Amino acid sequence: MSQAMAESTFPPVEEQLELILRGTVDCPALDDLQKKLARSKKTGKPLTIKAGFDPTAPDLHLGHTVLITKMRQFQDLGHRVVFLIGDFTAMIGDPTGRSATRKPLTREEVKDNAETYKAQVFKILDPARTDVMFNSVWLDALGTTGVVELAARYTVARIMEREDFRTRFQGGVSISVHELLYPLMQGYDSVALKADVELGGTDQLFNLMVGRQLMKEYGHEPQCVLTTPLLEGTDARLEDGALVGKKMSKSLGNYVGIQEPPLEMVGKLMSISDELMWRYFELLSTRKTSEIKALAHEVAEGRAHPMEVKKHLAAELAGRYHGEAAGLAAADEWMRIFSQREVPAEVPELIVKAPGAGGLGIVQLLREAKLAESGGEARRLVTQGAVHVEGEAVTSLEHVVARGGPWLVKVGKRRYARVTVA
Amino acid sequence: MSQAMAESTFPPVEEQLELILRGTVDCPALDDLQKKLARSKKTGKPLTIKAGFDPTAPDLHLGHTVLITKMRQFQDLGHRVVFLIGDFTAMIGDPTGRSATRKPLTREEVKDNAETYKAQVFKILDPARTDVMFNSVWLDALGTTGVVELAARYTVARIMEREDFRTRFQGGVSISVHELLYPLMQGYDSVALKADVELGGTDQLFNLMVGRQLMKEYGHEPQCVLTTPLLEGTDARLEDGALVGKKMSKSLGNYVGIQEPPLEMVGKLMSISDELMWRYFELLSTRKTSEIKALAHEVAEGRAHPMEVKKHLAAELAGRYHGEAAGLAAADEWMRIFSQREVPAEVPELIVKAPGAGGLGIVQLLREAKLAESGGEARRLVTQGAVHVEGEAVTSLEHVVARGGPWLVKVGKRRYARVTVA
Repeated sequence: MSQAMAESTFPPVEEQLELILRGTVDCPALDDLQKKLARSKKTGKPLTIKAGFDPTAPDLHLGHTVLITKMRQFQDLGHRVVFLIGDFTAMIGDPTGRSATRKPLTREEVKDNAETYKAQVFKILDPARTDVMFNSVWLDALGTTGVVELAARYTVARIMEREDFRTRFQGGVSISVHELLYPLMQGYDSVALKADVELGGTDQLFNLMVGRQLMKEYGHEPQCVLTTPLLEGTDARLEDGALVGKKMSKSLGNYVGIQEPPLEMVGKLMSISDELMWRYFELLSTRKTSEIKALAHEVAEGRAHPMEVKKHLAAELAGRYHGEAAGLAAADEWMRIFSQREVPAEVPELIVKAPGAGGLGIVQLLREAKLAESGGEARRLVTQGAVHVEGEAVTSLEHVVARGGPWLVKVGKRRYARVTVA
Repeated sequence: MSQAMAESTFPPVEEQLELILRGTVDCPALDDLQKKLARSKKTGKPLTIKAGFDPTAPDLHLGHTVLITKMRQFQDLGHRVVFLIGDFTAMIGDPTGRSATRKPLTREEVKDNAETYKAQVFKILDPARTDVMFNSVWLDALGTTGVVELAARYTVARIMEREDFRTRFQGGVSISVHELLYPLMQGYDSVALKADVELGGTDQLFNLMVGRQLMKEYGHEPQCVLTTPLLEGTDARLEDGALVGKKMSKSLGNYVGIQEPPLEMVGKLMSISDELMWRYFELLSTRKTSEIKALAHEVAEGRAHPMEVKKHLAAELAGRYHGEAAGLAAADEWMRIFSQREVPAEVPELIVKAPGAGGLGIVQLLREAKLAESGGEARRLVTQGAVHVEGEAVTSLEHVVARGGPWLVKVGKRRYARVTVA
């Protein structure tokens, strides 16, 4: 806290709020959040931002990073985030014993998974403003009495309002009693941490609100709750004026893994629709909102090409996980490859005869294929670097194209032919 | 257990069952009970009979003793009972903090209350075959993890079948989540004790069955469940062939407290209807069923007066709490007082003149009051002991009845007069 006092120049509340709310879905106690930010700015004391994660071995994709990016934004504003690892339940596993997929994890496994997690999330989070914590610390300490006292602070009716519980109960699908305890325990995490804000996906809204209510029950200032949306997968497209697409998921194949090589990340990101690009800027970029708006303005006015802007995004995201230089290099490399691949659907196909077994010289090939009007033009094109064979620039007049093919030959920006050397 | 092996001559299973089932309401797994009894007889190992009690300061009446009498019957058959004190929840109190009436008890208070309890119940139970236990021992040891694992073994739907939960839930009356945990914890007591049989009132049937189901979940042989009825209060009467009356309760004033003086207990018991007398025999007497049947037979055949039989019951019950001799003495004393009080509603009132200040001799009084035809008959009645004044036998011919009165004078069994000596 003394450190916080020293670095206490928080941005104005309205400026903070703009970034904090960017791309979020629910913020049911906005007034409280404003008050907390104002007090924090006045006292120089950072807010405590909580977000909980399962301690399973993670293999994160960009969909997961929406939340973590929001945490990072809080850090950029000067606040402190708690990366809370929900190891308590993981060490129990699924105690119903009915699911073979949820085995209890040992303390060692939880620690290992936490390390794997940290290696990934610290590509986004600032370690200096992050506390990694494990909820078994205070949940184990509750004991039987503490659990009963906790459970006494919430009614069955209120917890059965949770949509999945209600649906299952009404539909006769069994709910074990311990499932009712989990939201309470997650809520108790907020009590233990005295969280100011809890972040989560939209599917967590109910649980986050339980935390807010329990904090009141325990006589603490209640946390504010902020949810981030599910990120659309790379295949989302504009339909009837709205961005339509399934959420990013590994099983749907529409994901970008944060451990993928930079060129793959860039390639996947460059394939997204322009509308999705702005969505990704909103949810994944750490650029200021004003910068993003400026880019959108340039594109709208035709002063920037969407592909150029997309390249900025791809470079930023690949750079986050592989270093800035690697991100930029990958984006450039992709552009180079892309420019080769940008081949018209209808390319004329030709067969040219080679005089001997060695193939055909490039100048003669261009003439035979009618890609140059004359030997002089052919030579000029080659020396200007305007000729590519199979994506490789051919700049030597001595270059011989081998027998076989068909070879994709490109001259200038728009003229193509597929040439078989017979 | 070695002690049990030594004393292993249990009565035949059918004989045991007759006593065990006497007066009970529910026994949903009778087959299991038979098997347990048969195995117990074969191995010489007594069954473990569990019954739970709140550790509030008790002031027991006969209604409470129905269950304890059933425990005693098991002991008489050679089994072991666990008098389980539910101190765990009492030490939490009502954690909702909404009920001013349920304050948490300290460990000291629980111990004190347990002593008060023991002083009362060991008037019925055999201390040598009773284990007094406290459930905080294993419930505290569960810890957070243990509670979650316990709660995982039961579904919300199943617990919401409990009538009071269902009614409250459907009626919008709030149920706190911890209330769902209590039946599970009570059930876990059975797991911890490896109980063979759990006894309880009929209102406990659901909770007892939870214990049975949880034992299966934990891989134990499930307990059998036996419920005892609510005892009718002393004002229950026969109506249209059925015994009708509210349950015994202090607030209704229809109770017999086990700490009441023997004469009061006898007085209340002698006031009950004949039908209720048989009910009390069934539920409260430790007499064998065959003995009770024999008494009923004698009454039916007119060989015994119901009041005489009732006197046996009153003497037995008063004797249980005050010692056999005191019970019998109280029953005799009550009969003496009763016989005085058995005065016809219409008693002739007379005034007789005394010759001097000293009063009137008994023989002359009987003649003047027309209670004897002659001085000879009067003398004969006195010397035969047939004359009572104010309930005291007058056997001396010299007895002088003092001026004043009116005095109740009784001659023989049926002739009365209220005589004022003027």
